[in-house]
Amino acid sequence: MVSKNQIKLISSLHQKKFRAVHGLFIAEGIKVISELIGSQFELEHLYVTEPLFPEIPVSGKTMISETDLKKMSALATANNALAVFKIPASADITPSGLIVALDDIRDPGNLGTIIRLCDWFGIAQIVCSQETADLYNPKVVQATMGSMARVKVGYVNLGDFLAKTKLPVFGTFMDGDNIYKTDLATEGIIVMGNEANGISKEIEKLTKRRIAIPRFGTLQQTESLNVATATAIILSEFRRN
Amino acid sequence: MVSKNQIKLISSLHQKKFRAVHGLFIAEGIKVISELIGSQFELEHLYVTEPLFPEIPVSGKTMISETDLKKMSALATANNALAVFKIPASADITPSGLIVALDDIRDPGNLGTIIRLCDWFGIAQIVCSQETADLYNPKVVQATMGSMARVKVGYVNLGDFLAKTKLPVFGTFMDGDNIYKTDLATEGIIVMGNEANGISKEIEKLTKRRIAIPRFGTLQQTESLNVATATAIILSEFRRN
Repeated sequence: MVSKNQIKLISSLHQKKFRAVHGLFIAEGIKVISELIGSQFELEHLYVTEPLFPEIPVSGKTMISETDLKKMSALATANNALAVFKIPASADITPSGLIVALDDIRDPGNLGTIIRLCDWFGIAQIVCSQETADLYNPKVVQATMGSMARVKVGYVNLGDFLAKTKLPVFGTFMDGDNIYKTDLATEGIIVMGNEANGISKEIEKLTKRRIAIPRFGTLQQTESLNVATATAIILSEFRRN
Repeated sequence: MVSKNQIKLISSLHQKKFRAVHGLFIAEGIKVISELIGSQFELEHLYVTEPLFPEIPVSGKTMISETDLKKMSALATANNALAVFKIPASADITPSGLIVALDDIRDPGNLGTIIRLCDWFGIAQIVCSQETADLYNPKVVQATMGSMARVKVGYVNLGDFLAKTKLPVFGTFMDGDNIYKTDLATEGIIVMGNEANGISKEIEKLTKRRIAIPRFGTLQQTESLNVATATAIILSEFRRN
């Protein structure tokens, strides 16, 4: 059984301000929850509609009805498990290797997809501007498919961070060097810009290596790429060499 | 002014069955509408909340209130323009050049993003299985950002289509050849599989060229890539050579 107050608390975690108050976030579905349980994240409590996760002791989980799960869930169609995890201290970013920097990526689906891409390409660290979507937004957590268990995501003043770094800073611009014909680095920071406005003026000044994904369409009105697909192409190019 | 019946008809176009009944679909926002107006799509009527699209004669557009636009809109936050277009006859796919084939891509956002990617990479044709999301779903239309004006999308029995083609058929599988080290073709069909299940057994049999995107993550539990980001990486590799 789960009390009305618990349901209320858990569904309040859909909102950032209540996640901050309680220091908790939610994850849903067996796949995502399993990945987080097997990582540095600390499970607060697990709610299931069927006997799942035998490894979790009885004290740590509660069997609930589908109706109650639906009330807590942030998904359009609730799954069979919802876990509440503690939000850890903000990650410290070590300036080494390849790092992805996000300059105000506001769409939670894009942030989650980029985390998943970094995991695939073995990029262990992402640094985000304060205006970037919150890592613990349920839509981000679901879109990562659990890969947030392996990729460190830190929030910083991005201008300060880039001004201080000794790593080369890459950014994508229409007039940049063709990524297929440029020597890319094995260490560096790859800045991806906001969905609507691209990289901000302030951050552009700190971006010394201007790169571009060539366009192959014959017609020039082709819209820019979505930021997650652009990230996919760029990370693939950095890693393939 | 717009009548209650018109509002009802237009909001019914959010659903596939009513799009089929009326032979109409909707597009929203200046950017997407402009791209479609400048293409082969035929405008049925335009609704605006401010004096936009001066090139459209008065008989073809109606000024409406924000409240009425909200009732018609498929967006969470309605824009300032909604256009109704005629659904053209299903596109015929010509077996030449690079073609992307979608084997049951069910998420409208993924379909829209893939159309936008094809436009960027100059891929003029997409062939979809009948179970793939509907091109005229408002979420697809919005996610294309207007690039559906330039990319032909046809729905076919995908098994029959692939069985008949003389073009090489590529598909992504975990055990495929490393795309970074394989000779890719300038002509061929690139099959992308369903979000949850990948390429179906029936279609796999017709996919002679097995390719793979190498994984760089050190840990093996990394989830597969999202289908739109995988498409981005693969199209980039096909085109970069």
